[in-house]
Amino acid sequence: MQITFLGTSSGVPTRSRNVSSVALRLPQRAELWLFDCGEGTQHQILKSELKVSQLSRIFITHMHGDHIFGLMGLLASCGLAGNVDRVDIYGPPGLNDYLQACSRYSHTHFSYPVKVHAVKPGVIYEDDEFSVTCNQLHHRIPAFGYRIAEKDRVGRFDVEKAKAMEIPPGRIYGQLKRGETVTLSDGRVIHGNELCGPTEIGRKIAYCTDTIYCDTAVELAQDADVLIHEATFAHQDSEMAFQRLHSTTTMAAQTALTAGARRLIMTHFSPRYAPGNVVELKDLLREARAIFPKTEMAHDFMNYEVPRRREKELILAKN
Amino acid sequence: MQITFLGTSSGVPTRSRNVSSVALRLPQRAELWLFDCGEGTQHQILKSELKVSQLSRIFITHMHGDHIFGLMGLLASCGLAGNVDRVDIYGPPGLNDYLQACSRYSHTHFSYPVKVHAVKPGVIYEDDEFSVTCNQLHHRIPAFGYRIAEKDRVGRFDVEKAKAMEIPPGRIYGQLKRGETVTLSDGRVIHGNELCGPTEIGRKIAYCTDTIYCDTAVELAQDADVLIHEATFAHQDSEMAFQRLHSTTTMAAQTALTAGARRLIMTHFSPRYAPGNVVELKDLLREARAIFPKTEMAHDFMNYEVPRRREKELILAKN
Ligand SMILES: [Zn+2]
Ligand SMILES: [Zn+2]
Repeated sequence: MQITFLGTSSGVPTRSRNVSSVALRLPQRAELWLFDCGEGTQHQILKSELKVSQLSRIFITHMHGDHIFGLMGLLASCGLAGNVDRVDIYGPPGLNDYLQACSRYSHTHFSYPVKVHAVKPGVIYEDDEFSVTCNQLHHRIPAFGYRIAEKDRVGRFDVEKAKAMEIPPGRIYGQLKRGETVTLSDGRVIHGNELCGPTEIGRKIAYCTDTIYCDTAVELAQDADVLIHEATFAHQDSEMAFQRLHSTTTMAAQTALTAGARRLIMTHFSPRYAPGNVVELKDLLREARAIFPKTEMAHDFMNYEVPRRREKELILAKN
Repeated sequence: MQITFLGTSSGVPTRSRNVSSVALRLPQRAELWLFDCGEGTQHQILKSELKVSQLSRIFITHMHGDHIFGLMGLLASCGLAGNVDRVDIYGPPGLNDYLQACSRYSHTHFSYPVKVHAVKPGVIYEDDEFSVTCNQLHHRIPAFGYRIAEKDRVGRFDVEKAKAMEIPPGRIYGQLKRGETVTLSDGRVIHGNELCGPTEIGRKIAYCTDTIYCDTAVELAQDADVLIHEATFAHQDSEMAFQRLHSTTTMAAQTALTAGARRLIMTHFSPRYAPGNVVELKDLLREARAIFPKTEMAHDFMNYEVPRRREKELILAKN
């Protein structure tokens, strides 16, 4: 699970930061998922190492322009490139009507299936490996946060050990691989976990934007390996945050802390904190780290590979 | 009149060329006009030396996404920047409904007046200095070409000469400046043109995209100082041009030649001619120049200052 930030500015693009979009790469299945799609997202993908041909799902948090104005262009370009199989889009009610209206007025006909799903709180997508849950945040218009959870996996099956124990290969290996208990024809009882490595704990990512501090963001981020949370404003600009229902750095950090998240990456910064201004982004980072030390600030094209906990624990054990 | 190309690719953006937009600067009145507004136009303006605060008029040729998907983002950002007085938008019927629908779905409220004018063939805008005419081109959907004509101006009034001739200053100067004939109180008859420099011939720009070769493009480009014309395809790909109702290089050049334009700048190139392909953009340029030698190819951020004919003729006279 590799995260690439494609846009980290709130409201308007700047010379160095585009409006919101975050890519999630799932290399094991050659899929690319997008979270939000501000204007110019397709341009950012072009400049990155992401492959638009792998695009399969897009999750939209809310209908503000800086989160959706890149959708039509991206979808149209995917069609012209002719290398996308199907795209599923998840987002607030109204998203489908918006896309239909844009398609109609611009005479855009997608050459591949585009299916729009209106989300409501709960599980909105699930397969063998992943589930995606959403819940409503607290913004000026309906906005949804997302939690992407990888399922736990039984550890790697030790074939050499099974052979050494003279367990006959075939169907029994499959049962043991799944962690089941098997009675062999010679009467021995074998527990799958004897032959499997430690369980691979699924990774969890939460994406919360746009919102002021709210309990649902904490729930979505519970025990997450990484929480991506908006931090539009510095703490001193809390009043604006309350007026516009955006978060300050301290709200983002408090959310990560309360949720027991392992890492916080802040994004969606107001252009007012550009270098040279009274308050700069490094000040925002300091504010958040005072509450939640494992905080980073996103910048455009920043990559973050979500670490596996199992691997992490093995490394810890070695030290 | 300074032209800046902001996007010169057809259909989809590439790493080096954005989708369609052309800026026209009118420095004498600190105004910026835009022609078409593909996705990412506001990003291109940010990277250029253009001032978005000067934006006053936007002319849209047709409703295909690569010509309009940047409009909403640009208009929304102008509002957030809070430095635009008013924007008048001219385009095909449907443009207003499209913008209204996008505004509604994205909860975008412009903080300044945005007025959308549905164009039809004829003069669509006129003031003391400029007139803008449009006419329908020949594309898959209704598309309009534009002609921007600067009005002729009486040459500079020679105050020193007037004084030397002992013409009393005041109201009479104004009449002479306008080129009128005046009878002085002493009986002398003075013709304004005796005291004015050569008439400044207004400059004319034609913008024709998207279209296959058509007579209306020739009319719009009649005697133009510069014709900006699409050239999506190389001559060898004429069949595609006919199918999709786009122009080849040779059609663009033929339009310039037949219209008696002074210069042709081609734009809206298919990404298939990127460097390294069998046919490259330099081949497209060669094709056009074989028919119309004064042809250039646009690239993103290319500037072209439309020369004044009077100045040009003075230069010619000196040589
Ligand atoms: Zn928002
Ligand atoms: Zn078109």
